[in-house]
Amino acid sequence: MSTPAIEATDSESVATTLRARRLGLTAAGNDLIAVMRHDCPVCRSEGLASRAQVSLRAGDHEVVVSLLHSSGDTPAPGEIGLSETAWHRLAVRDGDLVEIAHAQPLASLSDVRRRVYGNRLVEEAFSAIIGDIAERRYSDVHLSAFVTACSAVPLDRNEMVGLTKAMVDVGERLSWPGAVIVDKHSVGGLPGNRTTPIIVSIMAAEGLIMPKTSSRAITSPAGTADTMEVLAPVDLDVAAIRRVVEREGGCIAWGGGVKLSPADDVIIGVERVLDIDAVGQMVASVLSKKIAAGATHLVIDIPVGPTAKVRSADAADTLSTALTSVAEAFGLHTRVMCGPGAEPIGRGIGPALEAEDILAVLQGEPGAEDLAYRACELAGGLFELAGATPAGGGFARALESLESGRAWTKFQRICEAQGGMRAPPVARFQQDMIAPHSGRLVSIDNRKLATVAKLAGAPMAKAAGVMLHNRLHHMVEAGAPLCTIHAESPGELDYAAAFAVSDGAIFGITAE
Amino acid sequence: MSTPAIEATDSESVATTLRARRLGLTAAGNDLIAVMRHDCPVCRSEGLASRAQVSLRAGDHEVVVSLLHSSGDTPAPGEIGLSETAWHRLAVRDGDLVEIAHAQPLASLSDVRRRVYGNRLVEEAFSAIIGDIAERRYSDVHLSAFVTACSAVPLDRNEMVGLTKAMVDVGERLSWPGAVIVDKHSVGGLPGNRTTPIIVSIMAAEGLIMPKTSSRAITSPAGTADTMEVLAPVDLDVAAIRRVVEREGGCIAWGGGVKLSPADDVIIGVERVLDIDAVGQMVASVLSKKIAAGATHLVIDIPVGPTAKVRSADAADTLSTALTSVAEAFGLHTRVMCGPGAEPIGRGIGPALEAEDILAVLQGEPGAEDLAYRACELAGGLFELAGATPAGGGFARALESLESGRAWTKFQRICEAQGGMRAPPVARFQQDMIAPHSGRLVSIDNRKLATVAKLAGAPMAKAAGVMLHNRLHHMVEAGAPLCTIHAESPGELDYAAAFAVSDGAIFGITAE
Repeated sequence: MSTPAIEATDSESVATTLRARRLGLTAAGNDLIAVMRHDCPVCRSEGLASRAQVSLRAGDHEVVVSLLHSSGDTPAPGEIGLSETAWHRLAVRDGDLVEIAHAQPLASLSDVRRRVYGNRLVEEAFSAIIGDIAERRYSDVHLSAFVTACSAVPLDRNEMVGLTKAMVDVGERLSWPGAVIVDKHSVGGLPGNRTTPIIVSIMAAEGLIMPKTSSRAITSPAGTADTMEVLAPVDLDVAAIRRVVEREGGCIAWGGGVKLSPADDVIIGVERVLDIDAVGQMVASVLSKKIAAGATHLVIDIPVGPTAKVRSADAADTLSTALTSVAEAFGLHTRVMCGPGAEPIGRGIGPALEAEDILAVLQGEPGAEDLAYRACELAGGLFELAGATPAGGGFARALESLESGRAWTKFQRICEAQGGMRAPPVARFQQDMIAPHSGRLVSIDNRKLATVAKLAGAPMAKAAGVMLHNRLHHMVEAGAPLCTIHAESPGELDYAAAFAVSDGAIFGITAE
Repeated sequence: MSTPAIEATDSESVATTLRARRLGLTAAGNDLIAVMRHDCPVCRSEGLASRAQVSLRAGDHEVVVSLLHSSGDTPAPGEIGLSETAWHRLAVRDGDLVEIAHAQPLASLSDVRRRVYGNRLVEEAFSAIIGDIAERRYSDVHLSAFVTACSAVPLDRNEMVGLTKAMVDVGERLSWPGAVIVDKHSVGGLPGNRTTPIIVSIMAAEGLIMPKTSSRAITSPAGTADTMEVLAPVDLDVAAIRRVVEREGGCIAWGGGVKLSPADDVIIGVERVLDIDAVGQMVASVLSKKIAAGATHLVIDIPVGPTAKVRSADAADTLSTALTSVAEAFGLHTRVMCGPGAEPIGRGIGPALEAEDILAVLQGEPGAEDLAYRACELAGGLFELAGATPAGGGFARALESLESGRAWTKFQRICEAQGGMRAPPVARFQQDMIAPHSGRLVSIDNRKLATVAKLAGAPMAKAAGVMLHNRLHHMVEAGAPLCTIHAESPGELDYAAAFAVSDGAIFGITAE
């Protein structure tokens, strides 16, 4: 076989620009999508037909999108159709020129592959990986591989420090006047347990600074941001957070709105689909956001129970050690407080239902005493860690703030400062789960209960979730409601109720 | 807070059917896609706006698709738009009714999560996972997590046996008259090395039965099926394979066409995106296909070299032990033959260029003597394993079959039986890589060379790839071409050439 004469490619070069066309497409998963015609000359000359991803550029904006090929009417030849997210990230208008090119091979993927093969990574590797993730250059397949590899062979301390640092470095960073900035985090896994808005109200009412940013749900039916959002706006930018904290000493904002750890927001999206939450990622996720938020003193709540996220004292120890040891590397004072995790804390599960509990606690109404108690324990720990009360004096000070009504006044003022307080929505569709016989309630499967709330639509459907009517160790009567499923659509109510009935016992009741 | 009266959901139930609309969408990645309007009543009543996936049913056909929401003109209200793959799998026509429902939570995902957390799985778990994967119920994120988890914490022998068995069980299974059915596999990783069509021709010419099914490329610039396809049709169904093998004693078909291991075909798609190929998956992938194809005697080629897939004698031992020990569990006689892996075997890399080498070997033309030699070694090993020659007599018999022209005659007859022989295409765009100075060629980076061929478009662009002009340890002159990059589009040629120049030395040449 002979080598044919070399054909110059420059003379064959064609324009690699297309005209933007807004398609109005959105998706719950990865929604950076572009559509081009299969017979498009640019597609043919660039050999894009076999590519799953391409790079698009318009002006200063660049984005890597998943590529769909169309043989239909839309887009027209010479056009490139864009999903809503791609459209906004490229900041184009209909007909604007968009340059299309092969997505560059990402150098950081070779480090992901090394981790997938079970090797450890150094700080520089995490830096490169997290930089590319923050820029949304990774496909879902690559994100999932990175997250999974860091879970199957757990991150060691050096890796956790490297990942945490990389996450802080790609985000915004807040700083505050004053030597003590308090913060609180719960590792979650326990439905309800929405102590944060109560704690912020207490700390700020007592004169401490607590600029709290919270996440939305990762694998749970609600994150603090989801719940707080039914009571007041949480999507605040840095300037708005500063304004609220300057005025009230505290805020309860959504962390994603300030891009404290933009890579973590992308990673959390994949963890949500996988329904996993590994120790190393959790440590980096939590601490990167606290460090970026400018916290100096941090209390971490770890609920421990047979169906909570952390199921044993051993597991709590592992997580606790990882958190404090990595926090130390960044000079962050941290106190881990393990707590009860056998049943939900509060009665509501899901954004609106949890918000009802928070209002009850702040207003001194009965029904969610366990939530009030846990909030005072954690707030008390924070008072002590920050040196605001002597050791042993924190709980009483927190309780006094609550009982005096000062915390409730402060909460209303924070809501007003964040854009105005509002009332939680009520679900239109509800269905009771009935006790099949009388007896003592001896176990609650938190995971299954959370799944029911999620199938009912939480956290996206704000009013959806589960309202509990009984607490552990109490007697229940045959035929009495154990809980009520709330949903915003009949399809979701059916979906959740079918799972609740089919998937084994959520509530363990002794024989009569 | 009070529990509101329970509202019946049945009275609110709405139709959950939509009319099918073909969108003509395809994608190189996951292409099971449906598009529905954001304001669609079905979407609202079923609460589908927050769902990334839904289940669609039409008649007996059911498929889980990724869901996109549209605020544009297409589809119209009451319609559901379908990608080509979704369209074909549902077997609908425009306007047919399609039922839409929440995708059922997949029970097997809890086993995937267990593996993601580093736990081992039993046979039943692999069975459930592989069943769901074969039915394409997993999203890309879940597939990637499963593949990664099985790589980061490598599968042990029990897991490999379980995975292999699960893969065999979900596919078709062939059986053949006769006690000896020979087969051959190469673990790949070495560009070129396309011995299979030569070995099948030799074995069949000498009267053995070799119904060979091969895969397309996983992470390489060409699989045997990709290469063979430029010489004859390879997409044969079971009946066609039987016809060819009955007539000629051998075939060289694409395994995906007979669904021997349909789950593996899905998994390979994700491995290709990740560019990984872990031992456990490799063992299950290889052996499941051989067992399903009805093989009794199997020779496995493992090229070993510093930039091949298997880089050391240790790694070759690990893989070799895994392959033979798992094969034994299924009663498959297996012989592993390690071979040279420091440089490509043959001159061509990419489907058409490798096909040219095969033709040269079969026709007794010079230029690819290394390929002829390796093919005879492996064919010889197979003769001996199958008891067709005494130990030590295999190589000579293979060589004689080649030199006599019997193998070439048999190859042409097999091509005719598969649907007709054809000539490989020639790339329109080519560019030489030039030796920067004179000296001895002392190293070739196989991985980078493979990347160049892939960036040039191989294996999707059949004529694309790299043609080598020098072998290791030979002298090269300054300015002489080291290799020629072949592409079917100028964009891909530029893309490949830019990488070849930028990414360090592919060819190591001693100073003059």
